[in-house]
Amino acid sequence: MSLIVMKFGGSSVGTTERMNRVAQRIIDKKLQGDRVVVVVSAMGDTTDDLIDKANEVNDNPPAREMDMLLTTGEQISVALLSMAIHKHGHAAKSFTGWQAGIVTEAVHAKARINDISPDRIFAALDEGNVVIVAGFQGMSESGEITTLGRGGSDTTAVALAAAIKADVCEIYTDVDGVYSTDPRVVKCARKLDEISYDEMLELAHLGAAVLHPRAVEYAKHYKVNLVVRSSFTQNQGTLVREAAEMEQGIVVRGIAADKNVARISVLGVGDVPGVLAKMFGALANKGIDVDIIVQSGVQDGKADFSFTVSLGDRQRAIDVLASIKGEVPYRETTYEEGLVKVSIVGAGMVSNPGVAATMFKAISDVGVSIKMVSTSEIKVSCVIAAEPVQEVVRALHTAYSLDTAETAFVGGPQDRR
Amino acid sequence: MSLIVMKFGGSSVGTTERMNRVAQRIIDKKLQGDRVVVVVSAMGDTTDDLIDKANEVNDNPPAREMDMLLTTGEQISVALLSMAIHKHGHAAKSFTGWQAGIVTEAVHAKARINDISPDRIFAALDEGNVVIVAGFQGMSESGEITTLGRGGSDTTAVALAAAIKADVCEIYTDVDGVYSTDPRVVKCARKLDEISYDEMLELAHLGAAVLHPRAVEYAKHYKVNLVVRSSFTQNQGTLVREAAEMEQGIVVRGIAADKNVARISVLGVGDVPGVLAKMFGALANKGIDVDIIVQSGVQDGKADFSFTVSLGDRQRAIDVLASIKGEVPYRETTYEEGLVKVSIVGAGMVSNPGVAATMFKAISDVGVSIKMVSTSEIKVSCVIAAEPVQEVVRALHTAYSLDTAETAFVGGPQDRR
Repeated sequence: MSLIVMKFGGSSVGTTERMNRVAQRIIDKKLQGDRVVVVVSAMGDTTDDLIDKANEVNDNPPAREMDMLLTTGEQISVALLSMAIHKHGHAAKSFTGWQAGIVTEAVHAKARINDISPDRIFAALDEGNVVIVAGFQGMSESGEITTLGRGGSDTTAVALAAAIKADVCEIYTDVDGVYSTDPRVVKCARKLDEISYDEMLELAHLGAAVLHPRAVEYAKHYKVNLVVRSSFTQNQGTLVREAAEMEQGIVVRGIAADKNVARISVLGVGDVPGVLAKMFGALANKGIDVDIIVQSGVQDGKADFSFTVSLGDRQRAIDVLASIKGEVPYRETTYEEGLVKVSIVGAGMVSNPGVAATMFKAISDVGVSIKMVSTSEIKVSCVIAAEPVQEVVRALHTAYSLDTAETAFVGGPQDRR
Repeated sequence: MSLIVMKFGGSSVGTTERMNRVAQRIIDKKLQGDRVVVVVSAMGDTTDDLIDKANEVNDNPPAREMDMLLTTGEQISVALLSMAIHKHGHAAKSFTGWQAGIVTEAVHAKARINDISPDRIFAALDEGNVVIVAGFQGMSESGEITTLGRGGSDTTAVALAAAIKADVCEIYTDVDGVYSTDPRVVKCARKLDEISYDEMLELAHLGAAVLHPRAVEYAKHYKVNLVVRSSFTQNQGTLVREAAEMEQGIVVRGIAADKNVARISVLGVGDVPGVLAKMFGALANKGIDVDIIVQSGVQDGKADFSFTVSLGDRQRAIDVLASIKGEVPYRETTYEEGLVKVSIVGAGMVSNPGVAATMFKAISDVGVSIKMVSTSEIKVSCVIAAEPVQEVVRALHTAYSLDTAETAFVGGPQDRR
């Protein structure tokens, strides 16, 4: 008898018919003798509809009231899913985040989970119930309703799995698992049987939408066995765990491409002490995440810097730089869009020299020039022009022997809340 | 500076525009220097939509999950109303039932309020907020989400007013106040300036939909000053309180007509000891409310009984009687529908003999025969054929000098959750 957490996203419960299919899937698990805790997101477009309603009333609604509003979406899902399970003749109990004992920071819209007190969950399991918990939500110490921000339901599932020491946390989604790269781009992308937390974390950060990075962080920290699998098929899915087996002769696990990238250049920066700390400290204070940083050589005591930010932060970053020009003198800022960050990820590369060189050569063979490079122990990222990115990804996929004969299953649009 | 509870029903906040009008009305009160606690129902058709969704999934959903589902309706309302008040530049905080400290019995779908701990309400008021509380809902001691059943938001408002010792509890609705009778039937119905709890209770039980009986009971028990007034006009409304002033020469406050009545007759009942206790005990055990009971004279040791129940309970009542025929032998049961119970209510009648006689004469003058009569200290009810009921009500209204020159304001459909 295992203790299992199953997480279903909003598109998996988007209609009554899908809700019933999910209920049947949960019951199958129960009938195998497992104890089952389910985490579920808001149905289909519910969250967007609620946001529209809020904007009709107030175009800048307070975060506290937004959390009050949005958490009803998951509350509706858990109640209906519980009713669907009852309809099939099985006992189930739904719980809101606060009822499930999920205690978060006293922050709205993007709270982190501080603690989970699973007493009520265990009591309901002991009574023979399927336990259904609303994803994405919790309660602060002072009793305020909070939400966990994007990827929140994944995080709820993993944090619950850690708190109740579940044997496995299954994330049901509309694709079969984690792929070596986006199967919509590369037809012969391979579904991975296993991937390590660190690799998954890099891929998640690099734009592979299948799991939210924060959920992977939790899983890594609490050593939760995560499985990503389809809610529409019985296929095996991908196991995310501490140390994943690598196939013979393969050093790269996956390839990701992220188009949400803008490059900012700061030219002719004066050689003031602590200039980097001041510049990037000011950006961090405004909540702007800087990714790759490159400094080119100093000339006449002046240096040039380039760094990447997400597209949405580009103008704010330039404004911040303008505001500190008194402290950090420079000649001018420029920016570039229409870029993509292509990354290869794999725990195997640490012991395989020449992995980066293979990447550079493959990109160059397609006739593309590399604008920036960044490396970590298990990752190499290159910023290139966005235009021929599909060709680049295909070339890398082949270069690292990732191609498979089977054509990958391609699911519908992802649902990541 | 007064402490005021304002309650708005679902039709008052049914659209964004109405929501804004309600927000303005609340802000006006705040700007007068009052401390304001608002109770609000689910918007317009939200509750019906949720019930439809539940029925799609399960035609007999568990009451616990139904409460989980339906309470989202009020949670959406309070969040949006709070946003609307913020939009107008004023501070507001919304609270679910459990956040507002509303503790109920551990019963679903129709829980009674056991206790209210208003600490968070007072803290939010002290910070300068308008406090907005979700009506209709609470939490049991064990942390289960519960609902209060029909009229629940009125009850929430009155119970909150009692708990925080509010100076007044204003129930905003789509009519101007409590009328001497249904203004859709009698054009010259008068709006009452005042009415006593007992009179209001009788009228509410007798089908005057403007206030739920349970809310009136709470108000009477905790001596809460209740005002019923329109959310669309600034008119004065009706004050419900302990002892209401009567106009000179008027003994009847109001007239109600309730069509939800069926008469059941049990003929030839054997003279068994405790026969009445057995018969009506069996009905009560099945949750069937019996209203008027009449026993006609005994003949040959056999008696005939008649009693009224609501239309929906008619068949069940007959089935219950059939099931106890072994214990309580009788010849046959018959029933009659197409009836109406017409009632006159007024605290003044206790000291005015002849009030009932005036009623009987007025009904007889219209050519209608009376089938059953029931009296209390402040009420006389007659069951008559439903057909000429409008004429009867008009005749009674005139007979008790209630007619006014003005034509009554007639509102839209009532909203009573």
